[in-house]
Amino acid sequence: MNNYKAFVTIRLRDGILDVQGKTVENALHSMAFNSINNIKIGKYVELNVEAESFESAEEIVNQACMQLIANPIIEDYFIDLVESEE
Amino acid sequence: MNNYKAFVTIRLRDGILDVQGKTVENALHSMAFNSINNIKIGKYVELNVEAESFESAEEIVNQACMQLIANPIIEDYFIDLVESEE
Repeated sequence: MNNYKAFVTIRLRDGILDVQGKTVENALHSMAFNSINNIKIGKYVELNVEAESFESAEEIVNQACMQLIANPIIEDYFIDLVESEE
Repeated sequence: MNNYKAFVTIRLRDGILDVQGKTVENALHSMAFNSINNIKIGKYVELNVEAESFESAEEIVNQACMQLIANPIIEDYFIDLVESEE
């Protein structure tokens, strides 16, 4: 078995209203950060996975994202997987 | 003025207990994802910034992260900045 490390970025799909992003944007504008716009807030997940191959690790992380970590109806996710020494 | 796009990843500093990550990890184990461990959950922020130079854009985003977007006491953040066409 090999160890892999996955870095998953999760963002709301285009067209889904980002209430949290809009709130942070308004707060920044009230703090005079007027040059910042179009804020989108998502999630970033790091995890370790043990698998027989890179492909199998990718499949495990993909299933975990689809079933629990992300909400595929309103979110897109991108998995960056690397082999790990640990 | 130029437009830049910033991608900010925010993660809990090492040693800070990640309660959310631990909860997701327990849930994954109960769903038979036993090969996944050591889950850390952070934030991922995308934003547009208008500035005169790359350095100035970086400074604006850095200040926004320090003052509002991240909590520098318990979180580390990494800014990835690119020039944007928009």
